[in-house]
Parts: sequence; structure tokens; C-alpha cells
Amino acid sequence: MTYCVGLQLDRGLVFLSDTRTNAGVDNISTYRKLFTWEEPGERVLCLMTAGNLATTQAVVSLLNERNLAATEREPSLLTVPSMFQAAKMVGDTLKGVIAESHQELVDGTPKTFGATLILGGQIGTSAPRLFMIYPEGNFVEAQEDTPFFQIGETKYGRPILVRAYDPTMDFATAVKLLMVSFDSTIRANLSVGTPLDLQIIEKDALRLGFSRRIQESDPDWRMISDLWSDALRQAFHSLPDVTL
Amino acid sequence: MTYCVGLQLDRGLVFLSDTRTNAGVDNISTYRKLFTWEEPGERVLCLMTAGNLATTQAVVSLLNERNLAATEREPSLLTVPSMFQAAKMVGDTLKGVIAESHQELVDGTPKTFGATLILGGQIGTSAPRLFMIYPEGNFVEAQEDTPFFQIGETKYGRPILVRAYDPTMDFATAVKLLMVSFDSTIRANLSVGTPLDLQIIEKDALRLGFSRRIQESDPDWRMISDLWSDALRQAFHSLPDVTL
Repeated sequence: MTYCVGLQLDRGLVFLSDTRTNAGVDNISTYRKLFTWEEPGERVLCLMTAGNLATTQAVVSLLNERNLAATEREPSLLTVPSMFQAAKMVGDTLKGVIAESHQELVDGTPKTFGATLILGGQIGTSAPRLFMIYPEGNFVEAQEDTPFFQIGETKYGRPILVRAYDPTMDFATAVKLLMVSFDSTIRANLSVGTPLDLQIIEKDALRLGFSRRIQESDPDWRMISDLWSDALRQAFHSLPDVTL
Repeated sequence: MTYCVGLQLDRGLVFLSDTRTNAGVDNISTYRKLFTWEEPGERVLCLMTAGNLATTQAVVSLLNERNLAATEREPSLLTVPSMFQAAKMVGDTLKGVIAESHQELVDGTPKTFGATLILGGQIGTSAPRLFMIYPEGNFVEAQEDTPFFQIGETKYGRPILVRAYDPTMDFATAVKLLMVSFDSTIRANLSVGTPLDLQIIEKDALRLGFSRRIQESDPDWRMISDLWSDALRQAFHSLPDVTL
């Protein structure tokens, strides 16, 4: 499994992903699932991946190869004119990789190696944009009513996101919110785990902002994880009693 | 979908279930999923169901028919000597109904109408016991380390249960906890909905205790639902800032 969240704020975009990859519970690895590209002063992009690791690694490799060999007729993530075109390129690449690896097993069962992606960033003078890209290659964009995307194990960490998200929050508060959401998820699902990869993209900076690998021993992570249980219990006990 | 939780407390057992049944999002009905039996002074049982409605209704009907026609060699829920034997009987009935309705579709695809159950209660001088019964007919029992069971849409409402559960809590606090857990679930999953059915079984009372159908307009339910969002936001903002 995986857990990644991309948040759209008035100040920019925030991305947090876990790094656990597993093939069964007895085969666990750490793989980066958050990837970034920038042309300082001109564009900045961040991609997070959930799903089959062979598929997502192939997508990132193909995007990187294209960056090295882009032409005017075949642009790359570093040359496409808009975030919409970037999402389309990533979606087409994803769809292509999935189609190529699709096969029928010996018994005739179809086998597909799917993946779902979150892509966000800013190009030139356009506003920052955030997309969720499906295995079919199509995608939806975040907007006021749906200002964040989750992929992977989305359920445990959703209630706090829905209730505490505020588009005007500063980056430190947004990171705190994501840490709380990840804490609930990691405690409940063994296949989501630290370290976490954080990336902030500040609006109009047009370069990669603050990033951090958050280890299990990270003091902020430990603090949030420890204090959140107490805060949640206190919030619960602050509710008035029901009548029986 | 469905959401049911059974809690084991020092004071007894608490059960809460939703009532929404759906076949697609355009075909929604209200069906009771919480069933009780008692022989006052001797035994009391509560069963909650998740899964295929035809299966769970057949299981309850068969259990009720058996109550009317029990013999010494074929006991019923009203005559079995222990909660373990009650769980075994319910599990065997469930397994039988599933086996009988299992079929192959015209194209050869196997089709199974599964269900999962929570059974709790108390018989005679034994302690109250709580079981989760699987479609295979076998079952596990709640114990100190795992003092509650959830069936159906379990993920959204789990983080608060895990953190705020305390075996010494009184019934009113336990009901409040379950209402918070259900609120998170109902807000996130359209296929879980009010009214809710509540049943309390007090230890050693050996009769059905407090029960209540909680409608959407129920003042306690509305209060918890409204205040919990604020309490959760306050809890979040009470956390210290992280450093960026």
C-alpha cells in the first residue's frame, strides 16, 4: 500500500508521501514515491505515485528520458507550456506503461499493473495547479470544493483532513495537518510507513521550496504522534454526555 | 455497505449498527441489522450483521425458527449452554446459508453471498462474551488486547475508537464514543446511514438493557455530530507548530 496527500492552499502546494513498498507482509522495502522537477524561475513540478512499483518507476524513468531528449514536436515536462499539458503527458505515459505490461496469465485471467498519481506544480505566470491522474490516463483537477487529493490507503486519515483543512493555512500548519493524517494511517495499516517525503511548492516562487525526509525518529513527527493521541482523547472527553 | 461496532466493557457490552442497505447508489433502503434475544434472568444475546442482506435475513430467520422448535438434541439460541455454543450455532447457520446460495453464473464465474456477524451476550453465571463470526463459520472472541469488533466500513471510524476506548468507561461515554466513530464514517461513506440501532447489555443483568433507535434528528446525535467537528479542529490547533 501507500499513502500520499497533495494539498492546494492559497500560498501554494504541499505534498507528503510515505515510502513503504511491500509484496506481502514479509517483503517490505523503502522506495521514494515523490519526484520533483524544476527550471528555476520558470517551472516547478512534483509527482507522487501509488500502485504497482514497476509501473510507477517506468513512468518516472520515461518522463526523465524525455526530459533529456525533448524536441519542439515532442516536448517534455521541462518544456510543456502548461500544467494541463504536463498532466496530459504524465497520464499518457502512465496509460502506455500499463497497456504494455498488461497480460493474460496462463489460466486466461487478465493481469494489469495499475497505478494512480498526484501531480502538482506551477508553470510560468499561470497559477499553481494540482491533478489526480488515473490508470486510464485521464485526470481531474483540484478546485475549491475538493482542494486536496489522497491516493493509496485514504480512509483512516481522511476525517481530520476534511475537518481541519483551511485554504488560508500557512505551510507549517498544513504540514502539521498532514502529519496527523499520516499518523492515523500508519498506526492502522502496516503497509504504510516512515520515512515520509515532504515537498512544499510556494506560489510564484517557481522553484522547489522546502523539502524534508521525515524519519521515524524525527522530533516533530514524534511530538505530533505523541500529542495527537492525547489531544484526540481530550477532545472526545470535552463533548457533553449523551442521555441514556 | 454497513457499519456495526460491538464494544466489550467492564460493565457489559454495547452494540451500535447503522440501517442502510443499498444495491447501487440509486437503490437505498433501511433495514434493521441488530437483533436480540432474551430469557430474562437466564440469558441475553445480541447479533449484528454486515454483508448480503438475503444471507443475513436467512440466518436470523433460521435462528428464530429453531428457537420455536428446539429439542434437547437440537438446541437453539435460547437453550444452548454457553456463548461459545451460541457462536458455533450462529457460525454453522451462516456457513450453511452461504453454501446453499453459492452458485456459478452462466459464464462460470463463482458467485458467493457472504456476510460477517458480531455476536455478544451472557448466559447464566458465565461472563459476557463478544464474538466476530466469519462467512466460513468460524469465529474469534474479543479479549483485553482487542476489546471491540467492527464490521462493514471499518476504517474511517477506527482511529478514535483505538485511542479513546477504555474498558472502565461508563455506558453513556461508550455511546458517545460510538456516535463519534459513526459520525466520521457516515460523513465519508454514503452507504452507511442513520437511523442507528443501539443496544446495551449490562453485565449480570441477564436481560436486554437500554436500547434506542437514533434518528438523524435525534438531539444527542445532532449535538455530537456538530460539536465533534469543532472539538477535532480545536484539538488539532492545540498541537505545537512543526519547524520548517
